[in-house]
This record gives sequence, C-alpha cells and structure tokens, in this order.
Amino acid sequence: MALIVQKFGGTSVKDSERLKEVARWIIKTKELGNQVIVVVSAPGGMTDSLIKRAKEINTTPSGRELDSLLSVGEQISASLLAMTINQMGHKAISFTGAQLNIKTTGEFNNAKILEISSQKITENIDRGSIVIVTGFQGVNEQGYTTTLGRGGSDTTAVAIGAALSADQVEIYTDVDGIYTADPRVVKSARKIPEISFDEVIEMAGKGAKVLHCRSVEIAAKYNIDIHLRSSFTWEEGSWIRRNENMEKALVRGITHIKDLAKLTVCQLGDNSCLQRVMGAIEDNNLDIKLVNQGIDAEGKFELSFILEEREAIRISELLKDRLKGNGRVGINLSLGMVSAVGIGIRSNRLQGSIMKLLNDRSIRSEMISSSETSLSFVVPQKDVNSLKQAMHHELIEKTLLA
Amino acid sequence: MALIVQKFGGTSVKDSERLKEVARWIIKTKELGNQVIVVVSAPGGMTDSLIKRAKEINTTPSGRELDSLLSVGEQISASLLAMTINQMGHKAISFTGAQLNIKTTGEFNNAKILEISSQKITENIDRGSIVIVTGFQGVNEQGYTTTLGRGGSDTTAVAIGAALSADQVEIYTDVDGIYTADPRVVKSARKIPEISFDEVIEMAGKGAKVLHCRSVEIAAKYNIDIHLRSSFTWEEGSWIRRNENMEKALVRGITHIKDLAKLTVCQLGDNSCLQRVMGAIEDNNLDIKLVNQGIDAEGKFELSFILEEREAIRISELLKDRLKGNGRVGINLSLGMVSAVGIGIRSNRLQGSIMKLLNDRSIRSEMISSSETSLSFVVPQKDVNSLKQAMHHELIEKTLLA
Repeated sequence: MALIVQKFGGTSVKDSERLKEVARWIIKTKELGNQVIVVVSAPGGMTDSLIKRAKEINTTPSGRELDSLLSVGEQISASLLAMTINQMGHKAISFTGAQLNIKTTGEFNNAKILEISSQKITENIDRGSIVIVTGFQGVNEQGYTTTLGRGGSDTTAVAIGAALSADQVEIYTDVDGIYTADPRVVKSARKIPEISFDEVIEMAGKGAKVLHCRSVEIAAKYNIDIHLRSSFTWEEGSWIRRNENMEKALVRGITHIKDLAKLTVCQLGDNSCLQRVMGAIEDNNLDIKLVNQGIDAEGKFELSFILEEREAIRISELLKDRLKGNGRVGINLSLGMVSAVGIGIRSNRLQGSIMKLLNDRSIRSEMISSSETSLSFVVPQKDVNSLKQAMHHELIEKTLLA
Repeated sequence: MALIVQKFGGTSVKDSERLKEVARWIIKTKELGNQVIVVVSAPGGMTDSLIKRAKEINTTPSGRELDSLLSVGEQISASLLAMTINQMGHKAISFTGAQLNIKTTGEFNNAKILEISSQKITENIDRGSIVIVTGFQGVNEQGYTTTLGRGGSDTTAVAIGAALSADQVEIYTDVDGIYTADPRVVKSARKIPEISFDEVIEMAGKGAKVLHCRSVEIAAKYNIDIHLRSSFTWEEGSWIRRNENMEKALVRGITHIKDLAKLTVCQLGDNSCLQRVMGAIEDNNLDIKLVNQGIDAEGKFELSFILEEREAIRISELLKDRLKGNGRVGINLSLGMVSAVGIGIRSNRLQGSIMKLLNDRSIRSEMISSSETSLSFVVPQKDVNSLKQAMHHELIEKTLLA
C-alpha cells in the first residue's frame, strides 16, 4: 500500500465530464490498494476571470482581498470533486487550506508554505476517505487567506507529499510529460522519461513551461518523486527524481524564451551611478534573465540586462530619469534566448559547437551565459526557432543516435 | 455616532455597477459619522447556479460539501465590495464566517447561529475600517463551513447587530418595504412605515416574502430595530421594531400562499392509525400550513392538512401504503390561502365580515384558521386574488378612510 498525492490542474477539473473522468481515475488508484490525497486547482479559466473582475473594480486591489477572492476557485473544484466521488459510491472529503491550517508567509499573492499539519488528513485517510485539498492557498499568521502565486497548486501537492512522507506525487496536467524541446517548435522533440530535480529547475528558469519551480525545490529537499503526466491520455509521463541510475544524457532539453530585450547602460559616471541603476532594478522587482558587466574603452562601467521587453521599455525611461545625463541608456528589442540544459553541461565545451551553429546560420548572438547546468544564447527573436531546432538536432538527436 | 449594520442582497451586488452604487452609499453612511458593518449575499443567481452545478454531479450531495461550495458566493461579493470601497479611497476589510468564527449548529444547509465573537470586527471598526462580512455562513464545532439556509444573510446581519449592540440593522433589497398586500395582486396596497416583530413573523409564515423569519426572531429577542429598504431607490422603507407608539391599525397586511392542497385522512380505525399518519408527517419533515382534526358521523377520527401541492401528492401515496386500508386518504388540489395579519386580530370578530365577503362572491372555504395575530382562509386557487383584493379593501382601505 502506497500513499499517493495526485494533483489535478484547471483543465482536468473544468467541467462535469472532466470531473467524472478524474474521479474514476482517483477511485481506480484507491482500489489498487493505495491511500490517496488529491490536490485541485481552480476550474480552467476561473482564476483569470476573477482577476479580470477585480481589475475592473480596482486597478490595484489589496493583496489580502485579491487572495480571498482568488481562493474560491479551488474551493469550487474541491467540493465538486468530492461530490463526484461520493456519487460513485466512495468516501471523499474536501478541505480548504484554511481548514487544514496550511501556514504560509504573509506575502499575499505570492506566499510560501511554512508548515502543514498532517493530522486532519491522516485521520480521514485512516477512515478510508479520499482526502481532497484546495491547492494554491493557505493562511498567514492572522488566519487570513493567502495564495501561492501562479502554479502554486503544484507546490501544495509536493508540500503535502513531504509533510505526509508520501511515496510519490503525481501531477496531472494537459501535457503528457517534459520534452527535450517544445514539440510545437521542434517536431523531433521527445518525451524525457526521467529527469533530475536540478535539471527541471534549470529548464523552468530557462523558459520551459513545466512545473512551479518551488514545487520542484521542495521535492528535491524532501526527496519526493514527482510523476508529471496527462489527465487526458493517462499514459506514463516524466519522472522527476534524484538522479541515481539515470540515463546519462549530457543535454536534457533545449528551452527558449521569447519577447526579451537587452537594456544597456553605458558611460556610467561613477559608482553612485551604478548604485542608482541597481537600485532602480531592485525597486521595480524586475525578473532579470541575464546580466553582463563590462568596462568600456574609456574605462567607464557598462551594464547589460536581458529582461522582458515590456519591463525593459518601462525601466529604460525610469533609468534615463534617474541618471540625469550621467550615463547612456540603450535598448535592443525583439530578442529571444535559447538554452541547452543538462547537469555538468559547462565542463563539456559545448560553447564551441553551438557558436559554429550560430556562425553557419549568420545568427548574431547578443549575449552568452553559462552555468553548471545550462548554456544560454540571446539572439534575434526571428532566429529563435531555427537555432532551437539546430541545437536540438546537434546536441540531443545526434547523441541519441551515437 | 451610531453603529449601523447594512445588509445587501444578491441583486444589490450582482455586477460592478451595482457594487459601485452600494459602495458609495456605504461611504456616505460612514461620512455621516457612523461606524459601518456590511453583510453581503452572493451575487444574484450565483447560489442557484452552484446548486444546479452540484445536482448535475450528485443527486444528493453531502451537506458538508454543498455548504463548502455554496459559501464561495458571499466570499466573492465581500472581496469585490472591499476592493470597490478601497478604490474610492476608503478603508475596508472583508471577513468570511470562518475567519470571524461565527459558530453555528452542526446541521449543514440549515445551521443556526450560536455565537459571534465581536473582537475582530471591533478592532477593525476602531481602526476606521468599514468591515464587510460574508452573510449566510458560519462554522460548526469542527470548523467546517455551514450555511444558514435561504435568506440566511438577513440572519447574519441581525445576529451581528445583536452581538455588537448595533443601533440599527438596515436590510437593503430590491423591494422598498413591507406592503399591506402584494402590490402585483392588490393595486391599492401601500407600504407599511412601521410594523412589529410579531406581525412580520406572522406575515412571513402566511406567505409574505419579506425577511428570513429567524432574523426577525433574533431582532425581537435582542430588541434590534430593522429597517427594510431598497438599494435601488434608497428611499425610506419599513421599520420593524418593538410596537411602542405604533400606528394602531388592526389588520397590518393581507398575505397569500398559492399551490396548496388539502389532504384528508378519514375513517381512521384506531389510535394506532392516527399515530401512523402523524409519524409519516414527521418522518417526511413536511411543512404543514394548517391542520384540522374532527370526528365523523361514525365516531371515527378525521384529519385534514393544508400543505404544498407537491408534498401532498407525494405523502398521500405514502399514507395509503402505511394505512393498508385502515382509513381513506383524499386529496383536494389547486388551493390557496389568504390571511389577514395583525396583533389582536382574533378578538376583533373579523371572521363574520370575511365570511360575508366569501359568501357574496360564492367562494367556498376549505378550511379556516385563526390565531392571536392572523386569520386564514383556504379557498380554491382561482379565487385567491379576488378574495385578497376584497379583504384588502374591507379590512385595510376602509379602516384608513374611516
């Protein structure tokens, strides 16, 4: 008998038909002799429409009120799923984050789980119930509802798995696993049967739309196996686990991010100017993908950032204002970043072979970055797809054939 | 400075426009120097559509899951209203029944409020906030969400008013007060400016669609004045309060209920048969409007009940089955009941003048019932409107002219 946490995303619970299909699967898992805890997201599209509703009313709604509002989606899914399982003759009981006292930090809209008390879940599991939990939400110190940010239900599932020492966490979604590249861009992309925690975190950071990063970090910390799979095909998906006995591929996937820009600040007068730039970046809570620092011919500081186009445009105006002439701000739009992800990638001198790919195609790279687990190239957006295909062919397909 | 509880029903919070109008009114009340607590219902139509959604999935959903599901409607209203008030530059904070620990009995779907701790409300009121509370819901002993049944938000408002010794409770709805009769049936019906708790309870019991009865019972017990009024016209409505210095009208209103039936059980063999009948009534939790007991020519028991047509049909089959020939069950469909309501009505011998009205119109009465505060006549459904108009003319309009 195993203790299994199953998480179902919005598309899996969006209407009565999908709920019935999901309920049958949960019951099947239980009838195989397992104990089952289920974590659900809001019905597909609901969170977005609630946010839209709120913004209609208030352009900057308070985090507390927004979280109270957003938390209803998962409550609806959880109750309806419990009713569906009951109707099929099985015991099920739903709980909200507040009812389970899932304690989080105080930051509304982006809280972090601190603690889950397992007592109520265990009691009901022991009585033979399927326990259904609302994903994405908890309560802060004062007992007010908080939400965990986009994709937070994955984190709830893994955190519950960790709190109850579950044997595995199954994340059901509308894709059937993690691929070596986005199959819409690279036709020959293939599903990765097994991948390590670090690799998934790196892939997510480099643009692959897989799991909520924090969920994988928790899984890594508590060594919980995650099985990412489809609730449409129900086929075996991708296992994310500690990398023992794992297929020793060097490059696990090619990922990409589009709609980026390069922001360059050069001829910076002195250190205080540099501080002003970094201050503006921090104050605006920007998601900087890459950063590069250099010194120009005149010995003056030069900084380059890769970030979302929208954010780059906004911040460039702000920087011009703050620098008051003590530096020049340049912006380079319509860029994309293609990355190769895999453990130990840096030590394998792949840079040369990728640069050859760029050269052969006359693609101009705006910035290059390498870490232990990834190699990233910032190129014009129009070249992203062809570079991605070329890198996939060179670094993944060829290796598989070899 | 007064402490005012304002309750807004579903039509008052159903979209952004209505929310803005309501928010402006709340702010206006506060700016007049009052402290304001607001209780909200679910957006109009939402509770019905959630029930429909649940029934699609499960014909008899568990009370606990249904209550979890239904409670989201008020949460949505409460958060959105807080955001609307915030956007207008005023402090507001929303709370769920669970967050305020509104303790109720354990009966899901029809729980009764046991206790409201006022601390969190008071704290926030004292900080200058408008406090918004979800109506209709609380938590049972285990901390699970319960709902109070239809119209339960009225009860939440009055219970909060009682717990905080509010100066008044204002119930905003889509009608502008309590009328001497349904204005759609009796054109000359007029708004009642002041009415006592007992009279409103009696009117509700006799078919007037006014307030949730339990809310008036609590208001009577704690002597809280209720002001029932419209959130569309914002005009002065009807005050419900202890009847001191009140206009001394004998008959306060004419109410009616349609779609009733008379169920007659006669030639009952013995006492055990009578018990079987009463047992069946109790087991089925029927809402008996009137009951009459007699002894027929042969000295045998005869019982007559007035109840909803639908229920009468269902129970008549069941009774035939239980009596197994020891009694005869008859049913008389398409009836209605017209009642005159007013304190001390019985002692005023109005029966004679009403019977004359029936006689003049050749209306056959199936049953008559009188209490201290009401006089009811069960007549064929087709005669309900004309009898109501005649009674309104005779007992209310003539008295006003006199």
